[in-house]
Amino acid sequence: MRNEVVKRNVKMLSIYAGPGTLVHEGRRISALHRHDELEFLPIYQGTFHCYSEDGTCYDAHAGDVIFVNSGVPHATACEDETQCGLLQFKQKDFLDTEIERVVRYSSRLDSLSEAGVRVLHDPALFEAINRIFKEISEKQVAYEMFAKARVYDILGILYRDGILTDAERIYNSKEVQKILPALSYINEKYAEDIDLSEISTLLGFDPSYFCRIFKSAIGATFTEYLNFVRICKAEKMIAKGEN
Amino acid sequence: MRNEVVKRNVKMLSIYAGPGTLVHEGRRISALHRHDELEFLPIYQGTFHCYSEDGTCYDAHAGDVIFVNSGVPHATACEDETQCGLLQFKQKDFLDTEIERVVRYSSRLDSLSEAGVRVLHDPALFEAINRIFKEISEKQVAYEMFAKARVYDILGILYRDGILTDAERIYNSKEVQKILPALSYINEKYAEDIDLSEISTLLGFDPSYFCRIFKSAIGATFTEYLNFVRICKAEKMIAKGEN
Repeated sequence: MRNEVVKRNVKMLSIYAGPGTLVHEGRRISALHRHDELEFLPIYQGTFHCYSEDGTCYDAHAGDVIFVNSGVPHATACEDETQCGLLQFKQKDFLDTEIERVVRYSSRLDSLSEAGVRVLHDPALFEAINRIFKEISEKQVAYEMFAKARVYDILGILYRDGILTDAERIYNSKEVQKILPALSYINEKYAEDIDLSEISTLLGFDPSYFCRIFKSAIGATFTEYLNFVRICKAEKMIAKGEN
Repeated sequence: MRNEVVKRNVKMLSIYAGPGTLVHEGRRISALHRHDELEFLPIYQGTFHCYSEDGTCYDAHAGDVIFVNSGVPHATACEDETQCGLLQFKQKDFLDTEIERVVRYSSRLDSLSEAGVRVLHDPALFEAINRIFKEISEKQVAYEMFAKARVYDILGILYRDGILTDAERIYNSKEVQKILPALSYINEKYAEDIDLSEISTLLGFDPSYFCRIFKSAIGATFTEYLNFVRICKAEKMIAKGEN
């Protein structure tokens, strides 16, 4: 399957926005692929088909928005007369960077419960996307401010409707705040032997209580999370060409 | 004159937002003061008076928004039955940090031509401010996303209407891009003797051409800008308790 690298075409904004009838490199059919960006396809005319990996077909009509979650494999096809737009951006580019790891982890955890491909019929969402296209094509003073405002509206709608998990809310929850020192500790010492009872003692928690609040805060056990951090670090080193 | 330290009362957002009838610490009259934050007072009922340093009185009525620019001295007074809201935030908290210096400099330069105190009658602005109050008081999921979106709308409106100078646009202008290496050079070597002809040669510009594009890009001469950077650095050192 193709891992698509999405280009950003709007100065000062980490988004790709392209109105028009042609989807994915000028072809009317796009084979199964995925990308980290959230994808939005507002439909203006005709019918648009989006396929998930298991072959389920999602049909969207004028006024609908096809939503494809980050990393979710999808293929698309449409009739000749179909007209749609295309908006793509990474959720994390619009969130505070310090919470990136928790975002990444929670989104990995939630990828099963979160929407993969969805057909959304929400006039506010449809309008927010179209406003981005309008601002970008007209390029009046401060168009990037209005476009950015609409990106936050879109994220707000997805969080409020439970289509995406609100990572900032997770991060700011009481449970996560309690185990933040443990998360920092893991982040620094991931390459060493990390002992659960040692880390609980350091935080002044009973080990069994620590395990319970860790699981309740992060949605995974201490060991699962530690392994996740180690894999992330290894990925980064490989990307940098280190050993 | 009092330099007011504005508290932020919204978690995850660098803003102060307080709906209500009472202005400035429960008093109906507030003496001349100033703060770095932009201030917005939407008026719901009655008449509100805002005074600038020279004694000019600005009257606002229901549906109006009083706008006070960053650092501008102002005093306020209102009748007992007057109802208004209060929104304050720093422009730079919502802009890319790398452009902060240019923002600061351009806003200092523009403080004369930019609005000081203004009565604005713009339904979109009024509505954006009220949406922030509504989101914050209801605190539904992702309220901070919708509030942040409205902050960008407010900045967009102020930039588009020429009430504030769009610093990101200044920064991204062709002129500023041409002299960016000079700005970085000044930023690093401000403590040393910086010679104008040397810096022009380094950039491959004729000194008189360099002076011309510098002035056109920044709105000030090379020497004026260098002095500004030196003052900024000195302020920072004093704040840190260095010598």
